[in-house]
Amino acid sequence: MTHRSRIYVTVIDVPADVHADEVAFWGAAGGHPLRELDQPEFHGTRLTDSSALIVQRIDDGDAHIHLDIHTDDLDAEVDRVVALGATERRRFDQWVVLTDPAGLDFCVVEDPPGTLTDDNANVWE
Amino acid sequence: MTHRSRIYVTVIDVPADVHADEVAFWGAAGGHPLRELDQPEFHGTRLTDSSALIVQRIDDGDAHIHLDIHTDDLDAEVDRVVALGATERRRFDQWVVLTDPAGLDFCVVEDPPGTLTDDNANVWE
Repeated sequence: MTHRSRIYVTVIDVPADVHADEVAFWGAAGGHPLRELDQPEFHGTRLTDSSALIVQRIDDGDAHIHLDIHTDDLDAEVDRVVALGATERRRFDQWVVLTDPAGLDFCVVEDPPGTLTDDNANVWE
Repeated sequence: MTHRSRIYVTVIDVPADVHADEVAFWGAAGGHPLRELDQPEFHGTRLTDSSALIVQRIDDGDAHIHLDIHTDDLDAEVDRVVALGATERRRFDQWVVLTDPAGLDFCVVEDPPGTLTDDNANVWE
């Protein structure tokens, strides 16, 4: 079985008190206004056909940035990056939180079928 | 005078002891091996025509991620993002370090003439 993945989103995680300012700033700075996504804590935009920027409101912790890898097979992609040196931290239905070799959080996120293709993503045998 | 800019690079900043592991991990995880750039503390790759990933070795501080905005006019772009709410922190010949409204570092980096065009970047009047 093959599956696909790509590094797709840079996520800026910020506390509630600066969330609106951060959404406005990065939308204007990058020239792509961020719109509210399916949940109010997420605002985002595509930067290119194969990259996106999200500002996420977080309840705890300091502002920071993390990367999301998108995939069409959550289990297979988590297994792949764990074999490369990542550590699984928390599992949700549609995404898994891991840490990289430097201890930085990143997520593997499952895309709807058909989103990733041989042209826009890596194909893993 | 017009100038151009785009959000171009996601930079993963890591201490020396995990630098090699981090370069290997993100090159393999993203399917685009990172190569050493013009200085040994920088390894990077393009992810798309308009986005790139760099792992940078840092001497001090904890691992973190920051964004680089690339521009063809350093002074004009710094003025623009400061007007949007950024704060200038340190100025170098080819780039300026700023903080965003959440206090996160980001850089404005000057590209060689001709790198940015009306097709691959925002044009600011």
